[in-house]
Amino acid sequence: MTATAIPGVPTRVTLKQGGGGRAMRALIERLFIREFAAMPFDGVGLAAMDDGAAIPFGDEFLVITTDSHVIHPIFFPGGDIGRISVSGTVNDLAMMGVTKLLGITCGVILEEGFPLEDLERIQRSLVDTCIEAGTVVVTGDTKVMGKGEIDGIVINTTGIGLAKRLVRDNGLRPGDRIIVTGTIGDHGLAVMAKRHELQLEGDLRSDVAPINSLIAAALEGAGDAITAMKDPTRGGLSSSLHEMAQKSQVGVILQESAVPLTDAVRSTGEILGIDPLHVANEGKAVIGVRAEHADRLLDILRSHPLGRDAAIIGTCIAERPGSIILDTGFGRRLLAEPEGEPLPRIC
Amino acid sequence: MTATAIPGVPTRVTLKQGGGGRAMRALIERLFIREFAAMPFDGVGLAAMDDGAAIPFGDEFLVITTDSHVIHPIFFPGGDIGRISVSGTVNDLAMMGVTKLLGITCGVILEEGFPLEDLERIQRSLVDTCIEAGTVVVTGDTKVMGKGEIDGIVINTTGIGLAKRLVRDNGLRPGDRIIVTGTIGDHGLAVMAKRHELQLEGDLRSDVAPINSLIAAALEGAGDAITAMKDPTRGGLSSSLHEMAQKSQVGVILQESAVPLTDAVRSTGEILGIDPLHVANEGKAVIGVRAEHADRLLDILRSHPLGRDAAIIGTCIAERPGSIILDTGFGRRLLAEPEGEPLPRIC
Repeated sequence: MTATAIPGVPTRVTLKQGGGGRAMRALIERLFIREFAAMPFDGVGLAAMDDGAAIPFGDEFLVITTDSHVIHPIFFPGGDIGRISVSGTVNDLAMMGVTKLLGITCGVILEEGFPLEDLERIQRSLVDTCIEAGTVVVTGDTKVMGKGEIDGIVINTTGIGLAKRLVRDNGLRPGDRIIVTGTIGDHGLAVMAKRHELQLEGDLRSDVAPINSLIAAALEGAGDAITAMKDPTRGGLSSSLHEMAQKSQVGVILQESAVPLTDAVRSTGEILGIDPLHVANEGKAVIGVRAEHADRLLDILRSHPLGRDAAIIGTCIAERPGSIILDTGFGRRLLAEPEGEPLPRIC
Repeated sequence: MTATAIPGVPTRVTLKQGGGGRAMRALIERLFIREFAAMPFDGVGLAAMDDGAAIPFGDEFLVITTDSHVIHPIFFPGGDIGRISVSGTVNDLAMMGVTKLLGITCGVILEEGFPLEDLERIQRSLVDTCIEAGTVVVTGDTKVMGKGEIDGIVINTTGIGLAKRLVRDNGLRPGDRIIVTGTIGDHGLAVMAKRHELQLEGDLRSDVAPINSLIAAALEGAGDAITAMKDPTRGGLSSSLHEMAQKSQVGVILQESAVPLTDAVRSTGEILGIDPLHVANEGKAVIGVRAEHADRLLDILRSHPLGRDAAIIGTCIAERPGSIILDTGFGRRLLAEPEGEPLPRIC
């Protein structure tokens, strides 16, 4: 069998299709969603393309999420592949409204010759991050591939938990305020700077952290007012906002000056020519909230150590559904939806 | 930091440690079990090193299992990486007693340039095997790594399901009979023959299949009499029997002539110099059953299309706990416990 090449239609997987943006969504929709979405499933399944799946369970929801972690380099300022593996999965569960973690699984694939010393360091980080998040690895799997068949180590984590009330990424309504729980762009730019061995002034560190305790506080204090949540990982804040706006059929006016950025992120973004709005975060959430409760939610977030820099950054509107309108202070323009993360293997 | 090398103690991961045998168990115990096992968890967790984890849930058990599939080649006689990804996870759940599947997750890692035609073929196989098993992919993740950073495609599947009564791999008691649900060695030898491009007579095909309907029939008809179950994947029947015997603290007398083998497996094993008892199966179960119910269970299994070749192959004894004693018909000898699967990337 040979594939008939159609001019202009790629016949091979591209790096961009792994970047978490529009190109990846198109690939997944084409290949994975179409058929599985047609199969009977009583709950939030693959078709929703949310942060995870949810199955009604008594008067609660069983939530499941999975992520493979291929980050390069495996050790970077502020974290490592072990910390990101636990945090990424715990955060995806939190985004769906999980307040009780049942456990996570850990599937490790190693390259022959991988240093045991590094493996022990990663294992230590997995344990520490589980303790920090209040969860535990309940089952796992180990595979070894030959030299040159895989680059070092890859870790898949799947998490399960219970949500009393499900939070989706498609519930934004006109008038809602958009909150981010802290500074944006730290993870993506820290990893890029490390990869390019940039000598930078200031402290550029990944924000990678399990933020389930922060989200639990938000849900407990203002859960009824929260209309949508998503963690701005691959493709960054821009990709998440676009996805939330498209699914919710609202527009979003984003106040550029209100988006919290560290000086290190701002200057590194300028040096590398990369917009911090477009790169991955690993310890942040984007939250939609009813306008009249926005200040209260902000207070709750800011009183938590992981939410000190939380800020109201935008407002939902009925016009221009699916679009993000960037208000620069000098005028307004449409924010482009990223095709994908600027660099592969960011998480 | 440099690791201090201890003479005779490896400092790097070896292929053998991914082979599912003793070497792998030692690595996992050293690195993963020690600390996670000490963390609070109300259920069957990592320390049990069973086919999955189980969490008490009302009067049932929520069972979770995870596997990364790195098989090479990705298409082989009788199956492909898609079929094995669904079957492996569904079967691990069945081994723990799951009779209601809640869903599986699918994390795909692709190499840049991977042919979309192959991806579509794998996706088709994932869908078909899900339909066969009566489950659905509920959530997923897609990553792309650069050329040469991963060999083609790797798929992680995590499954969750409910068990009314948990079945473990450590419940064998002296007197119990050991049943296998069909012929042994088909998967491992089919993949090896394909890898070496052997031209063989006869039909050597992998047995890869979801056997949850077979196991459900066994549990419904003879559940109370079943004392242990395990699927003989990496390391084959020998590795599974050793693990079950060690955990249960019984010996097992294995009747060599009773182990079902196809002619193709027998002859290929001889050509390659590989004992079919030591290679992976992907559509079989090893079941421990109370002696007085063994024939009844055998009848149930044989009346199911996936259990036609089921056979009673051994008996548990109180003596020599942890050992497998091979009765060749001419005498008895200890069956060696494999260090690991003879070849890597078998599943």
